[in-house]
Amino acid sequence: MAKVDAKILKGFKDYLPEEMIPRQEIIFKVIKVFESYGYSPLETPALEYAETLVGKYGDEGEKQLYRFKDNGGRDVGLRFDLTVPLARVVAMYQNDIPLPFKRYQIQTVYRAEKPQKGRFREFYQCDVDCVGTSSMLADAEYIQIASDLFKELGVKDYQVKINNRKVLNGLFEYAGVKKNQVNDVFAAIDKLPKIGEAGVVEELNKIKLSKDQVAKIMDFAKITGKNIDIISKLEKLIGGTESGRQGILELTQVVDYLTSAKITDKYCAIDLSIARGLEYYTGTVYETFIGGAEKLGSVFSGGRYDDLIGMFLNKKIPAIGYSLGLDRLFVVLQEIGLIKVGKKTPAQVLVTIFDGSTIAKAISVAKQIRAKGINVELYTGDGDLGKQFKYADKLGIPYVVVIGPDEIRDRKITIKDLNKKTQITIPESQLDKEISKF
Amino acid sequence: MAKVDAKILKGFKDYLPEEMIPRQEIIFKVIKVFESYGYSPLETPALEYAETLVGKYGDEGEKQLYRFKDNGGRDVGLRFDLTVPLARVVAMYQNDIPLPFKRYQIQTVYRAEKPQKGRFREFYQCDVDCVGTSSMLADAEYIQIASDLFKELGVKDYQVKINNRKVLNGLFEYAGVKKNQVNDVFAAIDKLPKIGEAGVVEELNKIKLSKDQVAKIMDFAKITGKNIDIISKLEKLIGGTESGRQGILELTQVVDYLTSAKITDKYCAIDLSIARGLEYYTGTVYETFIGGAEKLGSVFSGGRYDDLIGMFLNKKIPAIGYSLGLDRLFVVLQEIGLIKVGKKTPAQVLVTIFDGSTIAKAISVAKQIRAKGINVELYTGDGDLGKQFKYADKLGIPYVVVIGPDEIRDRKITIKDLNKKTQITIPESQLDKEISKF
Repeated sequence: MAKVDAKILKGFKDYLPEEMIPRQEIIFKVIKVFESYGYSPLETPALEYAETLVGKYGDEGEKQLYRFKDNGGRDVGLRFDLTVPLARVVAMYQNDIPLPFKRYQIQTVYRAEKPQKGRFREFYQCDVDCVGTSSMLADAEYIQIASDLFKELGVKDYQVKINNRKVLNGLFEYAGVKKNQVNDVFAAIDKLPKIGEAGVVEELNKIKLSKDQVAKIMDFAKITGKNIDIISKLEKLIGGTESGRQGILELTQVVDYLTSAKITDKYCAIDLSIARGLEYYTGTVYETFIGGAEKLGSVFSGGRYDDLIGMFLNKKIPAIGYSLGLDRLFVVLQEIGLIKVGKKTPAQVLVTIFDGSTIAKAISVAKQIRAKGINVELYTGDGDLGKQFKYADKLGIPYVVVIGPDEIRDRKITIKDLNKKTQITIPESQLDKEISKF
Repeated sequence: MAKVDAKILKGFKDYLPEEMIPRQEIIFKVIKVFESYGYSPLETPALEYAETLVGKYGDEGEKQLYRFKDNGGRDVGLRFDLTVPLARVVAMYQNDIPLPFKRYQIQTVYRAEKPQKGRFREFYQCDVDCVGTSSMLADAEYIQIASDLFKELGVKDYQVKINNRKVLNGLFEYAGVKKNQVNDVFAAIDKLPKIGEAGVVEELNKIKLSKDQVAKIMDFAKITGKNIDIISKLEKLIGGTESGRQGILELTQVVDYLTSAKITDKYCAIDLSIARGLEYYTGTVYETFIGGAEKLGSVFSGGRYDDLIGMFLNKKIPAIGYSLGLDRLFVVLQEIGLIKVGKKTPAQVLVTIFDGSTIAKAISVAKQIRAKGINVELYTGDGDLGKQFKYADKLGIPYVVVIGPDEIRDRKITIKDLNKKTQITIPESQLDKEISKF
């Protein structure tokens, strides 16, 4: 076999143990919370017919598609997101999947983007969607899920920011904003926290809007306060429009349901500047920020998209979904000190091998500790104790067990705590008790 | 958007919830056991440079490679197995990965095989390898891992069959079998349980072997008994060959270490007919069979391959690894009744919605049950109670909670057990107690 350089494709990464270990812990917690609400796991293939994927992601997305001919000449593409495969699954198994279909899906997606820091061409998406429901109960449920998830992850300070597309449409109707102006109006409103009222007015004046229109938009943009106050201000301002009325009703229901779930304004606040991909969402939209890491952006975002899931059936199937930005969440949790990257092994204990005469004892002690639910690595390499201690240190294993001929003779076990740099020798009979302190 | 038929590529499959749920349970148990031995998770990209993959899998494998030019004109291929990526990782991060490197990896691989029943072009591999160790402690450890894994999965009756490539080479040396005859000799020995001694002799006679050679091979093939007896018979027969002597020493050590780990012949038996890919393995080889499903083949197989992992470094790095056949294990566990496929949701309870007036109560009751660690779906669809019961039934949710206006007035809750077809109405205050019976 000719020697080949070991190298990895640009934009791709290996998840080595030090990153995989905390990452996997997060994923297990995410799964636990999703399942506690009855959401079911789904996985779909990495490869799809190209025709399943094309025309779904806009011109920019289309260019980023990994598309090729397979060995059988089929035009295929790599999974670009988890929403189109969900729509395909809903269409293909419509008789086997009762609606509402509550599913989560944690899989990699592939986008041939220009690689930049923190952006990869293969990355995980973690989607949780509820298909076939127009009830605001589902919309409220996502905020409960977020709340439970952050609790599970140990995050105390977070806020889900919520808005409703129909409320925004109500504003556009009320202020007479034309379709082609909508995005610019949004970009302007979005800057309010940064550039202040005068700044936003200036931005709005750049668009072809009348003084009256600008005033109406500013009245809307300035609405803040408690959820209940925002709703009542919205009613006065845009309650007369069809779309606004419907949006306000939906927001009111979501807020009511959250009250029943004991989730207060502190954790879920209406924020009229939240828009998200306007083309895509039809009702509730959310973003979620973690205290102390707001600048890193929303970690859990989504909304209602009633026109998308039926794409393969040519019918409307209401749906709502959230996407958890796993990579971003990882960085945020690191930032606020809730996860540490560094440990290269799940092992908490290394049982060393003194020499050939101590192997049998080492095996049985390792087994005894493992039986207590502790992860134990038995050293299977070569080298003396010094080398074995260095190995434990490099991997970040906190405890090292030494059983030499003296220990075997005296029925004792030596345990070194590498963090505290302490060492004790205990009678074998006290091992279980000692382990319980680990 | 033009309507496109919802279809999936031949040889690929969607893992719908009824399959994903038990599958995921198995994977969590596998991870738990691997980690209890200090094995660390690793993930590598789905796409690799083609040159990383070519020349590694033989002519047949090469044809099955998904290989294409990416948007940047790079010659790339989809992951074909998890061993070559492991070798690449070991080479790329040699300064960051202390040896022995104990890692597990559970990812999909891609092979453009002719699709047949139960064989897919995308499937999961679940590999656990120990890189950089020549100690038989590692070889014995895999049998401990298998033993713990089956215990975790509830499998009581299983057997790891173990052999050693060097022992086989010892036989070939002893009997003067030529390299080009080795595979045929093996195929013959392998048939012993099926076609009996006379049959094997007949097969051997078809190869160009002398009477003396056939007699020697038959002496070997007929060796059975307890591990300790097999070893002593092997010593007499092939202990005089260099390779045989080394192989017998290795087998003896593995058996010794297993004795220390309290694993008896019943769970790990030397079986001289086990060969596995002769080109690949250099020492210990294993296969694992589950009682009552032996015909479905080995579920956990592997061995020592000391010449492979160093491929990108042009140096020899001893290694040993097991591959867990997740799909086969799944079928086997189904066969022996340890997993049931059918439940379409992780939810154990469906909390129904009687009407708008009961929503607040339903939300809070769902939350209360969930807080007890039970997975609860709150019904977010439309339709009356009858429809909601049908939904629970279709998904396989065993308990349905009903809170109508009467229940709210009387502070009661009705719980239906869909399996037992019973129903009770209890005071709200007894809910926690009742839940504990679920």
